[in-house]
Amino acid sequence: MVTVAVDAMGGDHGPDTTVAAAVSALELDPGLQLLLVGEEARLNKQLATLDRPIPERMTVVNASQTVGMDEPPAQALRNKKDSSMRVTINLVKSGEADAGVSAGNTGALMATARFVLKTLPGIDRPAIVSALPSLRGHIHMLDLGANVDSPPELLLQFAIMGSILVKYVENKSRPSVALLNIGVEDIKGNDVVKRAAELMRRSNLNYQGYVEADAIYNGDVDVVVCDGFDGNVALKASEGLAQMITHIMREEYDRSLLTRLVGLISTPVMRSFQNRLDHRRYNGATLVGLRGTVIKSHGSADPLAFCYAILEARTEVQNKVPEHISEELTGMM
Amino acid sequence: MVTVAVDAMGGDHGPDTTVAAAVSALELDPGLQLLLVGEEARLNKQLATLDRPIPERMTVVNASQTVGMDEPPAQALRNKKDSSMRVTINLVKSGEADAGVSAGNTGALMATARFVLKTLPGIDRPAIVSALPSLRGHIHMLDLGANVDSPPELLLQFAIMGSILVKYVENKSRPSVALLNIGVEDIKGNDVVKRAAELMRRSNLNYQGYVEADAIYNGDVDVVVCDGFDGNVALKASEGLAQMITHIMREEYDRSLLTRLVGLISTPVMRSFQNRLDHRRYNGATLVGLRGTVIKSHGSADPLAFCYAILEARTEVQNKVPEHISEELTGMM
Repeated sequence: MVTVAVDAMGGDHGPDTTVAAAVSALELDPGLQLLLVGEEARLNKQLATLDRPIPERMTVVNASQTVGMDEPPAQALRNKKDSSMRVTINLVKSGEADAGVSAGNTGALMATARFVLKTLPGIDRPAIVSALPSLRGHIHMLDLGANVDSPPELLLQFAIMGSILVKYVENKSRPSVALLNIGVEDIKGNDVVKRAAELMRRSNLNYQGYVEADAIYNGDVDVVVCDGFDGNVALKASEGLAQMITHIMREEYDRSLLTRLVGLISTPVMRSFQNRLDHRRYNGATLVGLRGTVIKSHGSADPLAFCYAILEARTEVQNKVPEHISEELTGMM
Repeated sequence: MVTVAVDAMGGDHGPDTTVAAAVSALELDPGLQLLLVGEEARLNKQLATLDRPIPERMTVVNASQTVGMDEPPAQALRNKKDSSMRVTINLVKSGEADAGVSAGNTGALMATARFVLKTLPGIDRPAIVSALPSLRGHIHMLDLGANVDSPPELLLQFAIMGSILVKYVENKSRPSVALLNIGVEDIKGNDVVKRAAELMRRSNLNYQGYVEADAIYNGDVDVVVCDGFDGNVALKASEGLAQMITHIMREEYDRSLLTRLVGLISTPVMRSFQNRLDHRRYNGATLVGLRGTVIKSHGSADPLAFCYAILEARTEVQNKVPEHISEELTGMM
């Protein structure tokens, strides 16, 4: 049995999303147990509205406070000691939960997880890693925004953590790793990238050299490593472009009676297309490098997306990702 | 009459693309005159294959060398003094052409243009700026890869150059400018971004604060400013995602006889959709900050895309972009 603590108050929609997602996750995996953390009365009320049998593997844990989506991390850490986010992480620390999941404010979650759980030995700072869809399935990319101005040594740690995570979660013996740059030739890039490349070449990683950001979606490598600023830029630019494409396609299908009819006829193809690229399936970024498993859901996740984040937490616990990073880190340097 | 020098040998396809594009540009604009630069015999042969009347406003200018797409910039500058790229820029320097266009190697073009033309007074380094499609039309973004590790003062110069370019090319009196960051709150980002924000706040720019990379495609501002590393990451991630989406959509429509039929029925809607987002319409990035107008076409441009790059050069000459940057730079600081 894997026990996951769920911050039920976090995210743009709070319990409206998280509670239904938690019930779905329990229905999907009979080996899962959930601690639903937040205002008890509010959560019980939400559970009652669902009109579905609630598995006994769900326990509501009270937390009197909520961290705001825009609240400064330092303030959340200082003033919100009984927040649903903090209690979720505390449950991981105490061992009552094997992992924690939150759709709350990323900065506050990272600060809280670092403060309560601490980083693994040999890891200077945790990173955010997520799977992203690619032409050949998916790749993993890190850091996606936890660290700016990462020095070469930190980029090497990201590469090792990403490689070990993919090794166990995806069952690949030697995941290929590349460094994000603005060209593939040796002379390209800034000094930090060049020094990081040197460290990776000398490591035991399956290091493949530089890639440009379009390679994320080609799927040529298993792990793409970058500073958190660049990772966030790549991710957000992709989100913005995907939203614009969706919006413009809707407008085109909505132009006239004829185009609406074409839209109707195209529905099965478009649905199959959307399923293959469904960003909800990729929801659930890992705060890797901590002494424990913490998964960050997108703030705007719907119940399906949040359910995927819970299942990702379970998968990482089952595959003992933090334990393997601890054991294999030194050998990879 | 505007005279544009065209590096006919540059790009992935060389004269196969550039020559037809040049003829199309002349057909579209009777006020345009072109100097087609490259191996004379090769270009005349290509012109003969077109089977279209060649306007008299086209002159072939011989250049005996070609810069390779992967050739190191320093080597191109030293050893290729009669390259089509170098001769193109020389024609701008001598005043025989008002602007130059090349689909060649970006690094070599930037190095050649800087060496031959020099930067405008008060500009430390040129930047690459391009229009990108957005929900509300398009925005301009810079730097797209010419400069890595740009200090705050350079980011301010980028902002001013972008603002002046948009003011004259788009006829907007006070273009709105934003700085690319990984969050919109003041505490987000690295030190360079924070110091650049301070400089922009104190300037006469219509500065709107930070945006995240998804805002590029929302079109909330006219100019997005960033370091060249981040600009290149945003651009390449977008290119990669767009290619993946196109590829997967083709696969879905190609799945069976039925889906191919649906694809056929959807063709007019998809074509209208593609026209609105056609990246070829956005081909032609400006090397801004030089004493002259130089436009970089995407290396893989087809004739339509390369024709747009030539027309972009003409538009910037007509709107006297370098002259306005020279005149208005100091007042904007």
